[in-house]
Amino acid sequence: MLITRPSNRMKEVSSFHVMDVMTRAKKMEAAGHDIVHMEVGEPDFSTAQPIVDAGIEFLQQAVVHYTEAQGLPALRQKISDFYLQQYGASVPIDRIFITPGASGALTVALAMLLDKDDEVLMPDPGYPCNSNLTTLFGGQPKIVSVDAEDDFQWTREKVLSHWSDSTKGLMVASPSNPTGTLISAERLSDLVETVKEKGGFLISDEIYHGLTYEQRANSALEYSDDVFILNSFSKFFGMTGWRLGWLIVPEQAISAATRLMQNLYISSPTHSQYAALAAFEDDAQAVLLARRDEFKARRDVLFHGLEELGFVIEHKPQGAFYIYADCSAFTDDSYAFALELLEQQGVAVTPGIDFGRNKPERYLRFAYTTSRQQIELGLTRIKAFLVSKGLV
Amino acid sequence: MLITRPSNRMKEVSSFHVMDVMTRAKKMEAAGHDIVHMEVGEPDFSTAQPIVDAGIEFLQQAVVHYTEAQGLPALRQKISDFYLQQYGASVPIDRIFITPGASGALTVALAMLLDKDDEVLMPDPGYPCNSNLTTLFGGQPKIVSVDAEDDFQWTREKVLSHWSDSTKGLMVASPSNPTGTLISAERLSDLVETVKEKGGFLISDEIYHGLTYEQRANSALEYSDDVFILNSFSKFFGMTGWRLGWLIVPEQAISAATRLMQNLYISSPTHSQYAALAAFEDDAQAVLLARRDEFKARRDVLFHGLEELGFVIEHKPQGAFYIYADCSAFTDDSYAFALELLEQQGVAVTPGIDFGRNKPERYLRFAYTTSRQQIELGLTRIKAFLVSKGLV
Repeated sequence: MLITRPSNRMKEVSSFHVMDVMTRAKKMEAAGHDIVHMEVGEPDFSTAQPIVDAGIEFLQQAVVHYTEAQGLPALRQKISDFYLQQYGASVPIDRIFITPGASGALTVALAMLLDKDDEVLMPDPGYPCNSNLTTLFGGQPKIVSVDAEDDFQWTREKVLSHWSDSTKGLMVASPSNPTGTLISAERLSDLVETVKEKGGFLISDEIYHGLTYEQRANSALEYSDDVFILNSFSKFFGMTGWRLGWLIVPEQAISAATRLMQNLYISSPTHSQYAALAAFEDDAQAVLLARRDEFKARRDVLFHGLEELGFVIEHKPQGAFYIYADCSAFTDDSYAFALELLEQQGVAVTPGIDFGRNKPERYLRFAYTTSRQQIELGLTRIKAFLVSKGLV
Repeated sequence: MLITRPSNRMKEVSSFHVMDVMTRAKKMEAAGHDIVHMEVGEPDFSTAQPIVDAGIEFLQQAVVHYTEAQGLPALRQKISDFYLQQYGASVPIDRIFITPGASGALTVALAMLLDKDDEVLMPDPGYPCNSNLTTLFGGQPKIVSVDAEDDFQWTREKVLSHWSDSTKGLMVASPSNPTGTLISAERLSDLVETVKEKGGFLISDEIYHGLTYEQRANSALEYSDDVFILNSFSKFFGMTGWRLGWLIVPEQAISAATRLMQNLYISSPTHSQYAALAAFEDDAQAVLLARRDEFKARRDVLFHGLEELGFVIEHKPQGAFYIYADCSAFTDDSYAFALELLEQQGVAVTPGIDFGRNKPERYLRFAYTTSRQQIELGLTRIKAFLVSKGLV
């Protein structure tokens, strides 16, 4: 018989529970129901017009050949300039790789760094692909609960207390998905030093940089050149479907990253790269900064609305477009709660279970990737749901 | 100290030697030299206008959001129709995954099928990423020499004699890169049966389908539903820089492939998928079929020209856009020969070493991805090179 079954390892690569929510939401929409979408990690905005225009202009020439595996030098130069301007960090373009989304950046970083059974510390709650891809490349995700009182971020003490002989590296994400919390400059600098002392690697997920509402986020690059940085054109730059991100690696990892880009991708989408050249120009930046302000306004509406309803939000999120709300006043099973809320009121949210094992049954993630009007409607419906269940 | 060095496994992931040729060729071009490019596996054509137009039309709406992870249902339906029409094979769209290039299809297939130390039989000469990606996912590439007298393709006997207890699967490619040879319907059917008897998986690389000049290529899908098919929009469809391909999996592998798509890619480029919808329409197909005829004409010019110069081509290639020529009449080091040919005459070709360990020093791969005029010029220069060295 031909083998058609996946490998044993695939048992460890999980799907996302939010897919159940999305599938059900789609079916309800097809049946004529009106759904408020607060489950999706994708902004509702269309791509900023100057970026679209650059993409069209490029396509009009019709020559859509491969770029070099590492990506267009002109785009890498713009990213390098951006780091100097935003963070005061000097990054030569040889260390910058244009990847198919930040997913590509994460894949290349993990594929490059992991040998069999190498352990990687990752925060819980956190982005679920981190552990799935670590498993895929033979590594061992070591998922560590980070606490609300620490802004759901690492502390030096927590890293030290979980670092074992098999630990090879640490992942940090700021702003965090799902909590939207930032790590302070001081603690990030501490983390870099701690991992350096332990002789490990540091992967810093900075894909929500630019989407911060009170202060800018710090990059791990401000404290060392020897770190791996993941970033994306999908979030602040609003280019989700274009599939473009970038990876910054230390000098010594350039050859390995180049080989992986060649073997895994040949190159990133060419038309997306040419469009992205426009993303750093003033006209595009003006659009993107106005959207950031709109995200801030949405956050405030959602934050206050949820608090008023009795959800507990331990930290007002300072970035990304998520609120991770404690719903334990209403339920001890946030997954069932999410499905029931969808079924009865047509509001789609993501259950905590997608982000780890750190009390996920107490949490729901609300994405403010939809309009303020929709958010208000969602809040009204959630209230009706809670009232109908006698919970408020 | 922070870890900046790649894993041990990365030592097994090789770069391509043709990159040395390309880098040197670029430098020579920058210095004003005129280079004939026969090293690149990318057609010189621009994208067919109806496909470009569809891409522009899509971008004009500016909404470039993620598609579902598996890809646009409408595009998968067109691919399904295409299989029925081309091969008489019925493939439900649930088994079709739109991937970022055929590289994505290969990645998902290997990531899904391999556990640690699983052995995969692959033909030599063959596409170098096959072994690199197998290594990346913890498998063991077992590279087996295939012979000119067997059209550089597997035979049942050869598979049986190399299949061991650790062998988990077989890779087959028709038309082959670098040889351009096809496997016959009978032998392909035999292979499917052989792998079935042994209880392994079969991955069929069909990315050059459509680019065949005397007869159509057969798909492994004609003989079983339980096979893994890699295909691409880059070759016959001429959409290299758009980064789009597809993977067909058996029913039982749908869930695993979906999870991998979500984790590795989120989805394939949306604008590319919408553009590709136009690739199956009559106007685009007319352009693509005319280009296929042009490739055939180029092949004939190059084939006869090389034979006349004294290169030995054991099999006139029937597909793809490569000729794998034995240059042992002139050199016992094809890599040095390729570099010298570039240096002295500005003709860039790919040395055999990129395709395996099966007498690579005897072979050069010539790509007819450039115009007939350029091919003629290349032949003239190769002749001058041989004359200058007293070899003809």
